[in-house]
Amino acid sequence: MPVFQMQQEVRFQHCDPAAIVFYPRYFEMINLTVEEWFGSGLGWGFHRMHEVDDRGIPTARIKVEFHAPSRLGDVLDWSLAVKRMGSSSLDVEILASCAGEPRLTCRSTLVQFVKSTGKPVAWPEELKAKMSEFGA
Amino acid sequence: MPVFQMQQEVRFQHCDPAAIVFYPRYFEMINLTVEEWFGSGLGWGFHRMHEVDDRGIPTARIKVEFHAPSRLGDVLDWSLAVKRMGSSSLDVEILASCAGEPRLTCRSTLVQFVKSTGKPVAWPEELKAKMSEFGA
Amino acid sequence: MPVFQMQQEVRFQHCDPAAIVFYPRYFEMINLTVEEWFGSGLGWGFHRMHEVDDRGIPTARIKVEFHAPSRLGDVLDWSLAVKRMGSSSLDVEILASCAGEPRLTCRSTLVQFVKSTGKPVAWPEELKAKMSEFGA
Amino acid sequence: MPVFQMQQEVRFQHCDPAAIVFYPRYFEMINLTVEEWFGSGLGWGFHRMHEVDDRGIPTARIKVEFHAPSRLGDVLDWSLAVKRMGSSSLDVEILASCAGEPRLTCRSTLVQFVKSTGKPVAWPEELKAKMSEFGA
Repeated sequence: MPVFQMQQEVRFQHCDPAAIVFYPRYFEMINLTVEEWFGSGLGWGFHRMHEVDDRGIPTARIKVEFHAPSRLGDVLDWSLAVKRMGSSSLDVEILASCAGEPRLTCRSTLVQFVKSTGKPVAWPEELKAKMSEFGA
Repeated sequence: MPVFQMQQEVRFQHCDPAAIVFYPRYFEMINLTVEEWFGSGLGWGFHRMHEVDDRGIPTARIKVEFHAPSRLGDVLDWSLAVKRMGSSSLDVEILASCAGEPRLTCRSTLVQFVKSTGKPVAWPEELKAKMSEFGA
Repeated sequence: MPVFQMQQEVRFQHCDPAAIVFYPRYFEMINLTVEEWFGSGLGWGFHRMHEVDDRGIPTARIKVEFHAPSRLGDVLDWSLAVKRMGSSSLDVEILASCAGEPRLTCRSTLVQFVKSTGKPVAWPEELKAKMSEFGA
Repeated sequence: MPVFQMQQEVRFQHCDPAAIVFYPRYFEMINLTVEEWFGSGLGWGFHRMHEVDDRGIPTARIKVEFHAPSRLGDVLDWSLAVKRMGSSSLDVEILASCAGEPRLTCRSTLVQFVKSTGKPVAWPEELKAKMSEFGA
């Protein structure tokens, strides 16, 4: 099964006084992987989702294992694979590595909400079909 | 057993276009809870740890469940309890709530490293004794 | 004339690989000084402003001189003074120092907008009266 | 004279509860423009600068005018031009626009320091020659 892939470079803004990625910045990178997947992978960009369609996809739970530190200038290879699809939720596995060396493994559960009501809402069938192309 | 407690208010800088906390910012708050615990709870502030004593405490794994969104201006009650002490590692449970409503539950594993060598190092006995006062 | 004052400690999350404050983080601190001034100084907190009253106060221009670096653990003394009041705009001077040593001088112009229309709007007279108490 | 150019998209992580860029995040983008210019424009990447060559380029002063808000999903065109070269300092002008509409104008002064001593140090002649290719 294909997975979604993108690269993100470790920038000065991600690094802490030990010159390695400060782990809250990894969650910005994880979020950006999800954002880019929705936009270029699924064709439903965050601007349209949030500002036009009144939807959001907050994270319900997330678990990350950090395998090795990442340093300023490292080019990280990110991948995202769908692991479970619920009616309004979704489990994805996100991996980051650098030159083949694993840096982190993340498992995250997203839930689709209507922003104006705060209620969960089922994924449209067409979107689920696209998501399943990135399934495991 | 006593736990370490502090308050952190949800500020503009934490909030996303849905006016709720953007989850990577929660990890800044989680890190600040650990930082404040080391400083005012254990008497080993991050400046001394990182800049004088050549130590760091990177996160090896972290798991968070988000129970309800937090909004701009919410005053969050944070608590930290030690759950497991290894020779160079430590498991802590961190909870956040607002006016008694749970917002998140976090379990995190930290490892003490020597910054200049990148090698894990055992906690001093005196520090372990202080840590155990916050145990569960 | 009295100025608004608060303290903010330099935390791990503010520091770069040189173990000094990464300057974009100073702008978070500057924003927090303004946010706290509106809330506790003027009695118009950001939650009420943004979520109830449909107002925002974007920055139109800002100028900062950095006098000396700030390090992890430094406790910074922040002050804010009103320098000019327009009908819908406001110039403030924000200073940060540590143990009497100047760290930065900031001059910022804010403009009050109606969020839903994107139009500037005049300050209420009552608010202007309160603002003028922090004038220079 | 040619200027250095790059694109940066407005991401979810940059946006505030008004769904526009929170201005401290613009300073991350400004810094990234400088970082990318040093790396791909001048051939002296931040990893090598900071971790190998013991140099840093802190910002001494910065001034930004914000012309119009930027929204989630906007693709910003950034440009950087050298405006003044001192022996150890440098003035750059950084502009951002979206589809030809100006968003901000920034003037920033950088100073080269030796990280381990905290002392300013003169730019190497070879680097000055490269910098001057982006001059105004």
